[in-house]
Amino acid sequence: MTRIHVPITLRWSDLDAYGHVNNAEMLRLLEEARIRVFWADRSAAEGHEVPHTALIAGGPDAETLTLIAAQQIEYLAPIPYLRRPLDVQLWIGRLGGASLEICYEVRSPQGDPEQVLYAKASTTLVLIDNATQQPRRLTDAEREVWSAHLDEPVAFRKR
Amino acid sequence: MTRIHVPITLRWSDLDAYGHVNNAEMLRLLEEARIRVFWADRSAAEGHEVPHTALIAGGPDAETLTLIAAQQIEYLAPIPYLRRPLDVQLWIGRLGGASLEICYEVRSPQGDPEQVLYAKASTTLVLIDNATQQPRRLTDAEREVWSAHLDEPVAFRKR
Amino acid sequence: MTRIHVPITLRWSDLDAYGHVNNAEMLRLLEEARIRVFWADRSAAEGHEVPHTALIAGGPDAETLTLIAAQQIEYLAPIPYLRRPLDVQLWIGRLGGASLEICYEVRSPQGDPEQVLYAKASTTLVLIDNATQQPRRLTDAEREVWSAHLDEPVAFRKR
Amino acid sequence: MTRIHVPITLRWSDLDAYGHVNNAEMLRLLEEARIRVFWADRSAAEGHEVPHTALIAGGPDAETLTLIAAQQIEYLAPIPYLRRPLDVQLWIGRLGGASLEICYEVRSPQGDPEQVLYAKASTTLVLIDNATQQPRRLTDAEREVWSAHLDEPVAFRKR
Repeated sequence: MTRIHVPITLRWSDLDAYGHVNNAEMLRLLEEARIRVFWADRSAAEGHEVPHTALIAGGPDAETLTLIAAQQIEYLAPIPYLRRPLDVQLWIGRLGGASLEICYEVRSPQGDPEQVLYAKASTTLVLIDNATQQPRRLTDAEREVWSAHLDEPVAFRKR
Repeated sequence: MTRIHVPITLRWSDLDAYGHVNNAEMLRLLEEARIRVFWADRSAAEGHEVPHTALIAGGPDAETLTLIAAQQIEYLAPIPYLRRPLDVQLWIGRLGGASLEICYEVRSPQGDPEQVLYAKASTTLVLIDNATQQPRRLTDAEREVWSAHLDEPVAFRKR
Repeated sequence: MTRIHVPITLRWSDLDAYGHVNNAEMLRLLEEARIRVFWADRSAAEGHEVPHTALIAGGPDAETLTLIAAQQIEYLAPIPYLRRPLDVQLWIGRLGGASLEICYEVRSPQGDPEQVLYAKASTTLVLIDNATQQPRRLTDAEREVWSAHLDEPVAFRKR
Repeated sequence: MTRIHVPITLRWSDLDAYGHVNNAEMLRLLEEARIRVFWADRSAAEGHEVPHTALIAGGPDAETLTLIAAQQIEYLAPIPYLRRPLDVQLWIGRLGGASLEICYEVRSPQGDPEQVLYAKASTTLVLIDNATQQPRRLTDAEREVWSAHLDEPVAFRKR
């Protein structure tokens, strides 16, 4: 199994006036999952295990900036307020020269007898060299570590 | 020209730690533009002109709920903090039986000599009958008014 | 020790363009801590232990609404992005007839050799009977359970 | 009249699951009003009139940082979704050596026959020299311009 499971805890304020997690807020949950998996933020992580996939330092002063080029999301079921963390499953749908496509499934908490699939999504990231502000190629180390989590990209419904 | 121009004012808090409008926050700006164009919220709009396209009452108790089924967004340039409102251009890319695709271009303020195109996006909405919780067909009135704003859907870059 | 420790995990998006947790976002963290301690939301909590202090059902349809009448906050140090949860310490500064004052200290993660005190805050809540929309008195059960966490209110610096 | 009127447009996403503007979001509205009045952000303001009170450059690289030391807010009535901008009234309650207290009243849109007072609030700001990271004294120019908007500080209800 190549997917990475990221437990993401909802906040009550993620709900909108319909009493469900807001459609835009959903992208924040994906952002948080993505950051936990990819950012090697030593100071932020003090006393916290950083996953082996975390190869890019985050933040505006880092050597590499991760630019979000595109996102796509399909909402399958509304998410109510839950105290147990959502099970955000994350994998890589494509490793390009200087970019990668991150894929997600947002599911109800791990351990639920019948997990609900709330949403499917993808984010296209481009790695930017902060000094030159140009795209930079994935390193061999990144390619090796991340390719262990390579799988079929999300199949979105035809528009 | 069938596009509807919605002026959307940024808030400084839309910026993230990179000093640009956050990727998820961008969907909130689209949400706000969409609501202003489509929601016939009489009480909210008191003393404010409601556009002729606003045919659906908003909120959890309305007869028709507008369910967001899918969204897609391509980020073309980062958005800095601006005091003058963004020019969100909105049109309809497809009118289906019970659904419609709303298309957007997010541009720098109207009147700029060279408007920057910051992002292109689309939202697939399904109209739900609140009583039966089932999709309901677009009415003739909706189809007539909205088809005046029908145009080619956004062409997203191939993934 | 009468304080309740609520671990609250930051999100990267809590930061603003200064790279610290935004001043308004701080109230969201307090809101989340408060909800976890006081709301007896059975469905949200399924499979999750609900604290014994959680005596009020949350949400717009609950019998009792908790109205926020006032808030006060003193910011002592900026909060950076941290992966380990903040230690939000919560206690009750005053139990009134139909109201209570909730007090907070927001501290760096539990277990830190020298915990930083980031902020002190208080929230005045009024219990409202949803049927009559009037304040309702604290029940004996509420008073008994909550008085175990009664302590001196936060001492704010003189303005 | 020494108060400055700042029109602040709500977003539908400011509402929480109760269908009213969220208590923490309220501080974001105040933040936005404050920034518009005090920040002399030339690039952000291009093509937009900057008020004469805007004497401090905003952002993390500015010479002066405005540190929020404390905030206090009293909620008097829930705010529904409104299309017309709220009338945020802003004045200065105290000009100290290196600090100032900003006061606010959040009211329903200007021109309403009977304006509702939704909230009263105050923010204590400290001016920090970015180079030394120490508080710096208000300049004579700041003191002169801002003292024209000096008035009694907000009287909060006794806790």
